[in-house]
Amino acid sequence: MQVDRSGSVTTPKGFLAAGLAAGIKASGNRDLALVVNEGPLLDAAAVFTSNRIFAAPVEWSRGACADGVLKAVVLNSGGANACTGQEGLADSAKTAVQVATGLDCPVRDVAVASTGLIGVRLPMDKLLPGVDKAVAELSPQGGPDAAQAIMTTDTVRKMASWTSPDGWSIGGIAKGAGMLAPALATMLVVLTTDADIKPLALDRALRQATGVSFDRVDSDGCQSTNDTVVLMSSGASGQAPDPEEFTTALAAVCRDLGLQLLADAEGSAHDIAVTVKGAASLEDALDVGRSIARNNLFKCAIFGNDPNWGRVLAAAGTTRAAFEPERLDVWFNGVEVYRQGAIGEDRSLVDLSARQVDVVVNLNHGEHEATVWTNDLTYDYVKENAEYSS
Amino acid sequence: MQVDRSGSVTTPKGFLAAGLAAGIKASGNRDLALVVNEGPLLDAAAVFTSNRIFAAPVEWSRGACADGVLKAVVLNSGGANACTGQEGLADSAKTAVQVATGLDCPVRDVAVASTGLIGVRLPMDKLLPGVDKAVAELSPQGGPDAAQAIMTTDTVRKMASWTSPDGWSIGGIAKGAGMLAPALATMLVVLTTDADIKPLALDRALRQATGVSFDRVDSDGCQSTNDTVVLMSSGASGQAPDPEEFTTALAAVCRDLGLQLLADAEGSAHDIAVTVKGAASLEDALDVGRSIARNNLFKCAIFGNDPNWGRVLAAAGTTRAAFEPERLDVWFNGVEVYRQGAIGEDRSLVDLSARQVDVVVNLNHGEHEATVWTNDLTYDYVKENAEYSS
Repeated sequence: MQVDRSGSVTTPKGFLAAGLAAGIKASGNRDLALVVNEGPLLDAAAVFTSNRIFAAPVEWSRGACADGVLKAVVLNSGGANACTGQEGLADSAKTAVQVATGLDCPVRDVAVASTGLIGVRLPMDKLLPGVDKAVAELSPQGGPDAAQAIMTTDTVRKMASWTSPDGWSIGGIAKGAGMLAPALATMLVVLTTDADIKPLALDRALRQATGVSFDRVDSDGCQSTNDTVVLMSSGASGQAPDPEEFTTALAAVCRDLGLQLLADAEGSAHDIAVTVKGAASLEDALDVGRSIARNNLFKCAIFGNDPNWGRVLAAAGTTRAAFEPERLDVWFNGVEVYRQGAIGEDRSLVDLSARQVDVVVNLNHGEHEATVWTNDLTYDYVKENAEYSS
Repeated sequence: MQVDRSGSVTTPKGFLAAGLAAGIKASGNRDLALVVNEGPLLDAAAVFTSNRIFAAPVEWSRGACADGVLKAVVLNSGGANACTGQEGLADSAKTAVQVATGLDCPVRDVAVASTGLIGVRLPMDKLLPGVDKAVAELSPQGGPDAAQAIMTTDTVRKMASWTSPDGWSIGGIAKGAGMLAPALATMLVVLTTDADIKPLALDRALRQATGVSFDRVDSDGCQSTNDTVVLMSSGASGQAPDPEEFTTALAAVCRDLGLQLLADAEGSAHDIAVTVKGAASLEDALDVGRSIARNNLFKCAIFGNDPNWGRVLAAAGTTRAAFEPERLDVWFNGVEVYRQGAIGEDRSLVDLSARQVDVVVNLNHGEHEATVWTNDLTYDYVKENAEYSS
């Protein structure tokens, strides 16, 4: 399924967007984005961080998205508005009111998302005039500017779209350096479609698609206070695809955006796909995959181009997944370095010089399989996260 | 309780030790240690890694320690003998046989411990002659040499002892850079005492002491295949202290050794004590403490001398501990940066320039409290673990 990285939230019919510099970021870069659904449908679904400490915009948007209807999403970089108490929640509400006034829509049909430093109030004197400007600048070509405006430590903007031969399409923009649950470098995603999908099917499609994409991208195992993924449907294509077909396409767009996040993850030098085969259940496969993907010693070894399969096994051994240690196999980039619980081919045969690394573990205990994507742990990861307050 | 860092496993009466270079390490440094109990008692207790992928010496020593009787522990650095299959287990057995022959004792009264690279066979042609040499060199002053011989990435040897006014004492040596469960840079600890403690009480004392010391030292959240803590009692002092008193002293020696491990942890620039107060249970306090102590973004922030309390809260929010987010308090080195769910004192008041950092979180939900000790995440941690295969 070929995803187009030049398309974005304004590729599907019925959407307008804008992205501009409101003065929230000291750098003067774009920091405010607005994505608006012109209908005819205003259906929406959303998923948020599972962190119990969540930001004010998450609290606001959970409420706004609860009825499955959204007119617009407003997003800012330059400040997470997290751990800012009742004042912070009021700031998110004021932002939504400003958008609703500009678009003449109910205030609860406006979702809000924020990313940046935790524990600092947003400069509302800059943000609110910025909202008015964004409303005035809305355009059917505004997607790329919106993608630019939500960047923080991202070095490139992330966009993707897919268009069906039947004439309907899905588009998205994303920012961040981690997984839906994890990554304090908040992941924000806005997805749009002009397909006519029933609200319940839209919600189910979003949960299924994020479950096999963003949920399996684990940059650093850290969970954000602000992660937000919003999907809006305009129905403007007049097409009503089969929900299964729609979910497959949505998952492809989400997976592509997830891999773009990973490729731009803070300070990373390798993209690592950890595939666990032969698991007794999908949960076991994910459990082992995540344990390996979050192991700092394994991640440092990959940075050092060292096919250290001992660290892979040690990480697998901390899980409760069903397997017998003496039946495990491990491959690094196609070389079977560990076979049936004993030393396999010589580790010197493994070449880890390329950015992409494939680690495969066969538990030899069932038929289930899952892949978790992560990065290596590098000097630059430490540098960015020691020097940048997020 | 004042612990003496010049004492070691040969401080208690009835113990001999040796540490020498058998040629296992390419560097020519000491790499083989032997600690022998001369009695009259030969009581022992031990705890091992909870990793399901455990090394051959762990499998051997679990069996050797099961009956609560040990004559000796032989330890090598320069190779972990982990993931080496049936041959590896045979190597551990051969090592024990060599010691038992030299000491004229039952082979199952000899524990074996190894540390170094996973997945490589031990050079038995060097190790076995080394055992004979160690037996010949056993001495009541051999503790410091033994402490030296078990070092891998350690930069200093770790020793501690405590002597009761009643004339009995506890001594110990340790190596490693992490916690009992975690740390692929294996933690090996040998403890000795000349107190006369009943075997069951000895086992209980060891579990209680490690539970509040090594179990709460979490350098990098990674769990080793080789972690071993062995405690041997000779009873040679003729004193039979109260088990409670003995446990308190043992915990003090273990905590001191644990803090020595932390102070020498790979590449660290800060020692961090994370104290969680006001928890509904001890489990909740430990759960929140560990979640913070393992959060890479928090650990990077401390390396950058940044009192990033947002990352502390985000880590706490991933747990299931009982608390209301709006009632949390957070202190960095005595400055209350977050109070009752809102921004507290200015973060610029916090000084993180010293090596020791104290982070306190009050859940305000109960009476329980626990401290977890960890390190910051630094360039040098990445460097050591990218370049050194463990």
